[in-house]
Amino acid sequence: MKKNFLITNVNIATMSCDSGVPLGVIEDAAMIVSEGIILWLGKNQDRKKSLAGEECIDGQGGWLLPGFIDCHTHLVYAGNRANEFQKRMEGQSYEAIAKAGGGIQNTVNATRKETPEDLYQSAANRLSRLLSEGVTTVEIKSGYGLDESSELKMLEVIQKLDNDLAQRLVATCLAAHAVPLEYKHNPEGYVAWVVEEFLPKVQSKGLASQCDVFCESIGFSLEQSQRVLKKAQSLGMQIKGHVEQLSCLGGSKLLAEMNGLSVDHLEYLDNVGIEVLAKQQTTPVLLPAAFYFLRETQKPPIPELRKAGVEFAIATDLNPGSSPCGSLLLAANMAAVLLGCTVEECLLGITRIAAKALGVDHERGQLKKGMTADFSLWNIQSPSELIYGMSLYSPVAVFIGGEKVYG
Amino acid sequence: MKKNFLITNVNIATMSCDSGVPLGVIEDAAMIVSEGIILWLGKNQDRKKSLAGEECIDGQGGWLLPGFIDCHTHLVYAGNRANEFQKRMEGQSYEAIAKAGGGIQNTVNATRKETPEDLYQSAANRLSRLLSEGVTTVEIKSGYGLDESSELKMLEVIQKLDNDLAQRLVATCLAAHAVPLEYKHNPEGYVAWVVEEFLPKVQSKGLASQCDVFCESIGFSLEQSQRVLKKAQSLGMQIKGHVEQLSCLGGSKLLAEMNGLSVDHLEYLDNVGIEVLAKQQTTPVLLPAAFYFLRETQKPPIPELRKAGVEFAIATDLNPGSSPCGSLLLAANMAAVLLGCTVEECLLGITRIAAKALGVDHERGQLKKGMTADFSLWNIQSPSELIYGMSLYSPVAVFIGGEKVYG
Repeated sequence: MKKNFLITNVNIATMSCDSGVPLGVIEDAAMIVSEGIILWLGKNQDRKKSLAGEECIDGQGGWLLPGFIDCHTHLVYAGNRANEFQKRMEGQSYEAIAKAGGGIQNTVNATRKETPEDLYQSAANRLSRLLSEGVTTVEIKSGYGLDESSELKMLEVIQKLDNDLAQRLVATCLAAHAVPLEYKHNPEGYVAWVVEEFLPKVQSKGLASQCDVFCESIGFSLEQSQRVLKKAQSLGMQIKGHVEQLSCLGGSKLLAEMNGLSVDHLEYLDNVGIEVLAKQQTTPVLLPAAFYFLRETQKPPIPELRKAGVEFAIATDLNPGSSPCGSLLLAANMAAVLLGCTVEECLLGITRIAAKALGVDHERGQLKKGMTADFSLWNIQSPSELIYGMSLYSPVAVFIGGEKVYG
Repeated sequence: MKKNFLITNVNIATMSCDSGVPLGVIEDAAMIVSEGIILWLGKNQDRKKSLAGEECIDGQGGWLLPGFIDCHTHLVYAGNRANEFQKRMEGQSYEAIAKAGGGIQNTVNATRKETPEDLYQSAANRLSRLLSEGVTTVEIKSGYGLDESSELKMLEVIQKLDNDLAQRLVATCLAAHAVPLEYKHNPEGYVAWVVEEFLPKVQSKGLASQCDVFCESIGFSLEQSQRVLKKAQSLGMQIKGHVEQLSCLGGSKLLAEMNGLSVDHLEYLDNVGIEVLAKQQTTPVLLPAAFYFLRETQKPPIPELRKAGVEFAIATDLNPGSSPCGSLLLAANMAAVLLGCTVEECLLGITRIAAKALGVDHERGQLKKGMTADFSLWNIQSPSELIYGMSLYSPVAVFIGGEKVYG
């Protein structure tokens, strides 16, 4: 039985666009939570006295924000790629590093060998870091197994994490992350296995509600991606894609036309893609920490997206190869400093728009009557401080479904 | 009375250059601490049994590193400049922001008004963040007071923090940070006040062992800087400078020829400066988080420094205007990714070389017999992970003078 309570003496950045006020800010506000759901929020002076008999938390003039949502991670993995990073910083080429056994195959080998218990523990540590900055919903992809038992192992670890931890997790099947060594000379055979055997198995076991694919010259072609995504859709899974990261194959157009949830990366998104996105509900997701870590210079076309009225989410892309980043707020800071997003876009990109990218916007990403009481309380003067600071702030407290889980 | 203990089952990155091994690594090592000082360290198999009767800590195969040293911060300040950041990200120019009351004057106004208690508390929070990633020594500058009572207030807060907290602090007088509004039309008058009145007062009160100056076209001229530094030296203070950040005035040559401890920023360091640094003991300090946050494109001449055999330190520059960065490891990651430092240079830059930049290398910055037992223990496979990760790792424990202060 979850308790009911009142929070007073706070300012609330609801992230709702209903009022027309930037970030949906309500100053001198209060919020009432009942059974894990927001029962009421508004100006404190408008609160009916009859709703005052609950337990009361004094926000001490701080700010309430919706729980942050990291809508793109690969945080279940074994090993790390610090050694590759070290070589890269010494000037070695990607090719030389890949030839020496580096790259994704490195993580695949380590993840295949790892016990479920160790995979679970390292992922739980990473989730705990995200929670400590107010991230209450996290998407996690498979994709470092690339064979039946290892992909299932990853998805089962995500399921167990979701059962055990307070954070709300979304499991995504990314078996089409790369062609495994075993299929090096038969990529079509791997795609056929994913489509005909593996996706139905994942669906029958209820291990993933979403399906992702790496649509790229070094990944899967547009046609292969389409086959995987169509099958997933036919099984009732929601779809999304890693697209236009290193080149423009047209994955965003494909996903948007298939009513995909999100298209992620987008450094090489072209005007055709932007036009389609402007008409559809598919959400672009920026991954600025990968842009930074890979020393990418081609920026996603933010001004063009903005002009076309397309809102975008921001995520960590937490993974051992291209984005060993355990902070969503740092990713958001990089979206501003490196990619040219505004502070408002960054805050919306890790709340309301991230919820949309993950298909959970009916209940999360905003503070609003009827939504889940996932939120964090901060001792700051303005929400912009959270995007401005680099590892500078921690929340006073974090709540998920009305339960205090941090602070 | 500090206790004596033994740590076994660890690898140690001593950061010493004595052995010729990169980072001075000793694998399968042990370390014995007595009365806050390192009594012995080496291969575990070389340890004499007679030294085994102490309390024993099992390092569980992790890594010991010297306590990190943040040799350049401005972490005592009031207010924040998130509002300016927000405007800048929306495309406003520095000039427009400055005209609207932004810039350093904003922080000076807030710091002048703040009570010592509130200044103390916010600075203690920032120090605590640094401690939680293994930073055991921190330099802190004044420079947001710019009048007698406010500069003294800042220095007294630093003194009280140093007395109260476990971390070892170094106080630097940076009265010559900017010309305050009161002296807008008489900068020479301000320099005269710093030299003739304020520095002697600081020295007589024992409030700062070091003196810094902002030598820049928008700060103090080379000649003004020299006057301030000479006076500080005559009072027995060690000297350093903010130099060549926005242009090359020759501050690094001046500091090096005066046997200054460090020259900091260095984006515009020229060959003359590099040549002088190669002959002197003055240590260059890179501040990559400021480079990042200001979207600077001119990099400090790392290849040229390397070629000249000049080692450099790395620091956060933690301050509310140009580097709201509460993580030294993040600054080191940026030194690698953005400035082109190697992982080894980054690790040395926050340990042994940072100790040299701060004049504490006789007792800190390395794990070595006779040095202070300031160190952190990490559950990692290799020290390179700490530079590779972005907000991804926390230490298992942090010790200062042999006392466990975190974990």
